[in-house]
Amino acid sequence: MAQFELVIRHGTVVTAADRTECDIGVRNGRIVALADHLGDAERIIDAGGKLVLPGGIDSHVHVDEPPFHGVASSGDFGTDTIAAACGGTTTIVPFVQQERGRSLRSSVREYHAKAEGRAVIDYAFHIILIDPNSRLLGQEVPALIEDGYTSYKVYMTYDGMALNDTEILSTLEAAKAHGAMVMIHAENDHCIHHLAARMEATGATSLENYPLMAPQAVEREATHRAITLGEIVGVPVLLVHVSAAQAMEQIRWAQERGLMVYGETCPQYLFLTGDHIARSGWEGAKYLCAPPPRDTENQKQLWRGIAGGVFQVLSSDHCSFKFEGTTGKKANGPTPHFRHVPPGVPGIEARLPLVFSEGVGKGRIDINTFVAITATNAARIYGLYPRKGTIAVGSDADITIWDPEKRVTISTDMLHENLDYTPYEGFEVEGWPVKVISRGEVIVDEGEVLAEHGRGGFLACDRPDLNPAVGNPS
Amino acid sequence: MAQFELVIRHGTVVTAADRTECDIGVRNGRIVALADHLGDAERIIDAGGKLVLPGGIDSHVHVDEPPFHGVASSGDFGTDTIAAACGGTTTIVPFVQQERGRSLRSSVREYHAKAEGRAVIDYAFHIILIDPNSRLLGQEVPALIEDGYTSYKVYMTYDGMALNDTEILSTLEAAKAHGAMVMIHAENDHCIHHLAARMEATGATSLENYPLMAPQAVEREATHRAITLGEIVGVPVLLVHVSAAQAMEQIRWAQERGLMVYGETCPQYLFLTGDHIARSGWEGAKYLCAPPPRDTENQKQLWRGIAGGVFQVLSSDHCSFKFEGTTGKKANGPTPHFRHVPPGVPGIEARLPLVFSEGVGKGRIDINTFVAITATNAARIYGLYPRKGTIAVGSDADITIWDPEKRVTISTDMLHENLDYTPYEGFEVEGWPVKVISRGEVIVDEGEVLAEHGRGGFLACDRPDLNPAVGNPS
Amino acid sequence: MAQFELVIRHGTVVTAADRTECDIGVRNGRIVALADHLGDAERIIDAGGKLVLPGGIDSHVHVDEPPFHGVASSGDFGTDTIAAACGGTTTIVPFVQQERGRSLRSSVREYHAKAEGRAVIDYAFHIILIDPNSRLLGQEVPALIEDGYTSYKVYMTYDGMALNDTEILSTLEAAKAHGAMVMIHAENDHCIHHLAARMEATGATSLENYPLMAPQAVEREATHRAITLGEIVGVPVLLVHVSAAQAMEQIRWAQERGLMVYGETCPQYLFLTGDHIARSGWEGAKYLCAPPPRDTENQKQLWRGIAGGVFQVLSSDHCSFKFEGTTGKKANGPTPHFRHVPPGVPGIEARLPLVFSEGVGKGRIDINTFVAITATNAARIYGLYPRKGTIAVGSDADITIWDPEKRVTISTDMLHENLDYTPYEGFEVEGWPVKVISRGEVIVDEGEVLAEHGRGGFLACDRPDLNPAVGNPS
Amino acid sequence: MAQFELVIRHGTVVTAADRTECDIGVRNGRIVALADHLGDAERIIDAGGKLVLPGGIDSHVHVDEPPFHGVASSGDFGTDTIAAACGGTTTIVPFVQQERGRSLRSSVREYHAKAEGRAVIDYAFHIILIDPNSRLLGQEVPALIEDGYTSYKVYMTYDGMALNDTEILSTLEAAKAHGAMVMIHAENDHCIHHLAARMEATGATSLENYPLMAPQAVEREATHRAITLGEIVGVPVLLVHVSAAQAMEQIRWAQERGLMVYGETCPQYLFLTGDHIARSGWEGAKYLCAPPPRDTENQKQLWRGIAGGVFQVLSSDHCSFKFEGTTGKKANGPTPHFRHVPPGVPGIEARLPLVFSEGVGKGRIDINTFVAITATNAARIYGLYPRKGTIAVGSDADITIWDPEKRVTISTDMLHENLDYTPYEGFEVEGWPVKVISRGEVIVDEGEVLAEHGRGGFLACDRPDLNPAVGNPS
Repeated sequence: MAQFELVIRHGTVVTAADRTECDIGVRNGRIVALADHLGDAERIIDAGGKLVLPGGIDSHVHVDEPPFHGVASSGDFGTDTIAAACGGTTTIVPFVQQERGRSLRSSVREYHAKAEGRAVIDYAFHIILIDPNSRLLGQEVPALIEDGYTSYKVYMTYDGMALNDTEILSTLEAAKAHGAMVMIHAENDHCIHHLAARMEATGATSLENYPLMAPQAVEREATHRAITLGEIVGVPVLLVHVSAAQAMEQIRWAQERGLMVYGETCPQYLFLTGDHIARSGWEGAKYLCAPPPRDTENQKQLWRGIAGGVFQVLSSDHCSFKFEGTTGKKANGPTPHFRHVPPGVPGIEARLPLVFSEGVGKGRIDINTFVAITATNAARIYGLYPRKGTIAVGSDADITIWDPEKRVTISTDMLHENLDYTPYEGFEVEGWPVKVISRGEVIVDEGEVLAEHGRGGFLACDRPDLNPAVGNPS
Repeated sequence: MAQFELVIRHGTVVTAADRTECDIGVRNGRIVALADHLGDAERIIDAGGKLVLPGGIDSHVHVDEPPFHGVASSGDFGTDTIAAACGGTTTIVPFVQQERGRSLRSSVREYHAKAEGRAVIDYAFHIILIDPNSRLLGQEVPALIEDGYTSYKVYMTYDGMALNDTEILSTLEAAKAHGAMVMIHAENDHCIHHLAARMEATGATSLENYPLMAPQAVEREATHRAITLGEIVGVPVLLVHVSAAQAMEQIRWAQERGLMVYGETCPQYLFLTGDHIARSGWEGAKYLCAPPPRDTENQKQLWRGIAGGVFQVLSSDHCSFKFEGTTGKKANGPTPHFRHVPPGVPGIEARLPLVFSEGVGKGRIDINTFVAITATNAARIYGLYPRKGTIAVGSDADITIWDPEKRVTISTDMLHENLDYTPYEGFEVEGWPVKVISRGEVIVDEGEVLAEHGRGGFLACDRPDLNPAVGNPS
Repeated sequence: MAQFELVIRHGTVVTAADRTECDIGVRNGRIVALADHLGDAERIIDAGGKLVLPGGIDSHVHVDEPPFHGVASSGDFGTDTIAAACGGTTTIVPFVQQERGRSLRSSVREYHAKAEGRAVIDYAFHIILIDPNSRLLGQEVPALIEDGYTSYKVYMTYDGMALNDTEILSTLEAAKAHGAMVMIHAENDHCIHHLAARMEATGATSLENYPLMAPQAVEREATHRAITLGEIVGVPVLLVHVSAAQAMEQIRWAQERGLMVYGETCPQYLFLTGDHIARSGWEGAKYLCAPPPRDTENQKQLWRGIAGGVFQVLSSDHCSFKFEGTTGKKANGPTPHFRHVPPGVPGIEARLPLVFSEGVGKGRIDINTFVAITATNAARIYGLYPRKGTIAVGSDADITIWDPEKRVTISTDMLHENLDYTPYEGFEVEGWPVKVISRGEVIVDEGEVLAEHGRGGFLACDRPDLNPAVGNPS
Repeated sequence: MAQFELVIRHGTVVTAADRTECDIGVRNGRIVALADHLGDAERIIDAGGKLVLPGGIDSHVHVDEPPFHGVASSGDFGTDTIAAACGGTTTIVPFVQQERGRSLRSSVREYHAKAEGRAVIDYAFHIILIDPNSRLLGQEVPALIEDGYTSYKVYMTYDGMALNDTEILSTLEAAKAHGAMVMIHAENDHCIHHLAARMEATGATSLENYPLMAPQAVEREATHRAITLGEIVGVPVLLVHVSAAQAMEQIRWAQERGLMVYGETCPQYLFLTGDHIARSGWEGAKYLCAPPPRDTENQKQLWRGIAGGVFQVLSSDHCSFKFEGTTGKKANGPTPHFRHVPPGVPGIEARLPLVFSEGVGKGRIDINTFVAITATNAARIYGLYPRKGTIAVGSDADITIWDPEKRVTISTDMLHENLDYTPYEGFEVEGWPVKVISRGEVIVDEGEVLAEHGRGGFLACDRPDLNPAVGNPS
């Protein structure tokens, strides 16, 4: 019997800190050796001239959630994990949505049922809390944390989901008491309603008006407030999908004061702008998400925030709403109205190539930072490290082999997202994951999907593995 | 013949990004394998329960330089590298001082002669420029960069050494043209002379007055100016031995604007204060260095700057001036006078244990950040990576095995610095490097020095390996 | 008949901008002449060696309001205006409290009835909104603005009074539409309840715990939010009784961005600290107000904010709760409990002497700034200018003659506040208003009260007279 | 004999703090009364519907200085003071230039001779120090301060004039010891030479390159340094002609820290940009000054700095270089070269109308701030208050009557500057000083110059009358 089931040879192995020319030996799905030369393997992959990176972790994805405004998710755990894998992602962390009047445990079981038999890569779960009452926080949540559900998301906006400050404080207290990470969608719900009503009163309801409903100040205010609530309780918080410089500056200000405040941003804020949403007619609906994309100056500032350590996580916030059809983004009426289009864009597949090409390729960040923000940091923050998120002895052999020179033009056709559009249609990227390996198994090879549905497994998360040095969590 | 000359087993291997339980295999002085299990070695070290870290790089040390104010270096490349090794450091980067009217090449040769036959660990050289004329910058420096001398230090203060802004600009242009890193000692020389004269006029010359000669504003101004000069030329700069929050804030401000500005701080600014210098009589001379240590609030801010990525490098700025004797700090007169005591304190041996104990042990930084600031970042910035600064396949087997629970009280007696004092006398630390390995050879073992003089070799440096993401260079 | 009913001679007349040696001529209660020499008067006051200042405006006072937590106001419009006058204040702007289910107009009438026949100086009214419904904002408020009630106060905390963000936004829209100033008490109500509950759960209910219920972050967050709400609507806001540096920095940040954000602070934040509240037993109740006083570092920062133009208004936030007795601060239980002592301290009489002595006397601000923050700016912001707030031809002859060298030790006994304590007991001040003149009538002369009850009249306010140059409104 | 020699009736009298409808009575050239009605005058001016403002003080003008780069001043004290008066300015403070090897007293006498018999308005002098040796600072300067020369200007750039930091420190010490104000031209001379040489090496010498020689960083650095030097000595400094946001932010940062740092800006930085200098051929020379004008975003920031109190003074930095002819800006060669055109633009006449129209008229600042920055603040800072700079009893009757609605198109022809161009050619303004009164004498009446040469007199300055509240000095 060969010593290794797989050896990857001659690649440039990259972690959040290092670049090494070495071979990687895999046994039982785990990395067991990194060495100058490894032989005696069942399978040998030559990665000469290629980059060998930890498989990506997409820690903010919406998969098979209930319809929103009547618009359904088109993807399920099968299609979305295949798309993820094709884009170089080997772990996802989707959400379990709490339902009022139902136990969290029951909801969790439902999402397990959705994932089992379908997922081709491993997955953990965050839980969205919309009613954090004392029974739930005192009993259910602690038990779930023990079982590996260690991250909880709260909304400061959206009807029926927004928590008030007292509810967020209670959630943060529970997180502190039992060891969990709280993710916060920070936008001031009152301001959004106020501005939306003002616009509706004047008939300014076409899609180009959408960003005016949630200007930067709305996100900045809620970000400041979320930071304050974390400060009051004395517990870390993670601000998700930060869209703009003003919110980012609040996060940086908090970090400089020594608060453990983490930030996430997404490709839609690095590559899209309000001009996309302003495209005529329904076209803008393809780019509509919350918070809205801003402008090129904000994109530049966000890149600087990534490079400078303000953001730890870059995820997709993937939503698989179709564009056409009775369950698509256009379903809620004959003409576009900015309040009737459900916010959310897909991105689970294009995330890594976009950021690699524009980030590493254009010199905005180095390759180690790319690994950190797309894999290692999320693993640590969400308690998946060192099983996931790095290339090290003992870690799962979740590995992507990148051809840094491969040029690809992104299009709906070539993606695997079970959707009729992508907001990144026509984007040209340089660099693509040509082989994607999950626990030692090549699941995507030069674009061919080799994975079997159901091979992906559930990851029980440990408590967060946080660094006092926020801004540099790996 | 055994496959490995050395295997280190069962330790927790730490890099700037990862913590891995694995064995390390060494051959021909280099790390050739990291694996879950390695056998067949000439020597096996059991590191169970221990941390296995990259050997430290001390990238700011003064070794065997000419006397300063008549006060001589007590250490030479023999004693200082032994002390370094005993403290867990396996690479040093001392300075070659330019002399007026002499070729740099000739000075470089002199320092090679000082090191050869004496050094027990590897070394590279920075070159201090005190007369950066056009011939030197146009001919000598480019040739030296080709030969592996890729970092140049300039002073903004000290009689006979301070460069004016035009000279610094010229130096930066040469660094940009040929690919070198410029290190800057940033204090406003005019202000120091002005304040010193004012104090001398009133007879306020005892040592406790020393910090008043160079208040924070003096360092802050020069830091802002150095940043501006780098901005004007469009080239990275590295501010050395930053002592206080005001200068640090200038660096952070520059980094936030996207400038490639790097920062270094030192143990004396984390552990000493002006109160030490104010100790009565000559005692304060033991703590006198430039810039002066500040106060506990500034210490706190500097730690925050390390944790938050403002500083990339933590070095010792080691100076081996004796305290007593005709060549000691007390040599320049019968009573202490703040202008007659040469500034500089030793620290080559205590640096790592102090920072480990107070930083990692007290939760101010995590262990990965410790590795980054004491080894990996310096390796990248000074062109020694990946040969030095990490534990990775292909890197030199420069490794320290730390007992994180070993308690040590620092004293002059137990150190190897060939000195009659240490500013850290009586400091208690938890955590100590119990085995120090250089290119696969155990050179210090439980306090016993096993290294032979002259085994250390010269490291020709590559050009800097910089990250656009300043604040996060590894 | 003499040309003037009153001439004030030989004083140094000070406005927010100027210092002039001149005589002042008064006729029909108004200033009609400033000249190098004026004769022919019914009464001549020699102000040689004295400062002649505009009478103070105290634009934040609670007079004869309903009991709070069962604790009654001890002062009424008679006693409080006498106290005000004795301290150099010639105009007050107390509050009309909205009551649920009652028209504002009716409440306004009630307060007029309270004032008429009692007040010895002139008064305007702010209106506190606790239920800003659309009828009220659409009909009552516009009519009241027309009638001279042009400033509205909202609370972000206090049970039964706190408005949510939507209610504040609506109020701001009405203010914008009709031209009113909105004053905001900015503290996060959720945080206060959360922290109070946490403290009560552990029995930490003695008075020294009070400041922990509302740390700086609580005020800072609400300040940031209030600024944002004003920014969203595009209307000025005024943050009242700012207690600390963190909230102040938010105001300054907003002003630097060009937002019209105004700030007020009070003597309790310049002269008291949390240590006063921590005095043993009931004693601390004398100093308990909301937000709580902080520490000496914050006092220093607030002074800097006054000097640098961050604050435009310095008022007393006077509350006349007695200390002893069944309606006093100790009324709610046998032992002190930080939730049962109504917050609020008196200060209507000591305000000006305290700020004059510690501000002008100690060189923290100049005399023009003193006039600006205690009189002129409030007059402009609240639409009383130029009738009140300055010494100029055409303005009411509301004038105080200060002896800048008179030394006074403040004590309950010498004050006129109808109270059994003052938080400034024992404070020594230098400078005192030796003559106080309202509409040309000397109402206080060397401590003797000459005013008749009811002589004070209602001032209908114009709309705010604002300066685009916030930070410098006069 | 009439009681007043002049009465100005029915105008709106404006000071830095107030707006008053009143009459002004003048006797012996001084304001002796402000009253609701004044009669019995030799002359009565009806100012109904007009603004009555203090005459402007232009505290930064170059008049009849020696040629610079061979280019001569075209104006003298006659023409320049007439132009000043026509624009509403009634006091100027030009410079006396030190000459090496000549006593300051002798130079001062020379400038008195230039002014006497020519000036139509009053004048004081600043003194430019280019060789602040110890004799000069220890003997000459103290004697001159006693005689009314209380402000001293130093340059950080210009060959033969730039002082090094030690010289500036010495100057500041003298200012502190004897009570003077130091004005600083802050640009880093080394950087300018370095950049100019780099541009000359590539032949990039046309005028459009001029701003690249002195980018914002060059001014920002020197501003930070100047602030630091003031901080080291503990004395106020005034940064003159601040051109851009980066330098302004340094001043604001200093003010927020409580340092007494004052700032001045000029019309060329509010109304011109680098695009003007980039106009083809020689045309750009008309707009060339140092520092260079920037862009519209910086203009916006400077207006915000004026409104927010960062700047205290707005002066013209008037230079009367001709454009054509052998002593004009084009004199130094056949083709334009950015190093050969002397920097400096005229503005003594257009200053007030430009700032009134674009500042007050467009709502960027209010009328009180206009008075403060163009008159009152300079009077206080330079020791001319209360004689000049306000409308108050006892002050000189230096008064301008503005028609706020008069529209004027600025052109070389209608100005009185003895020049063949104005950089403001074609600018349209609303608001013009229709009557200008100096010490009670109408010297300009509806555009007609009535003043006799030599009527202007020398003003011996008191020591600065400074406010601890920097940012709000009046």
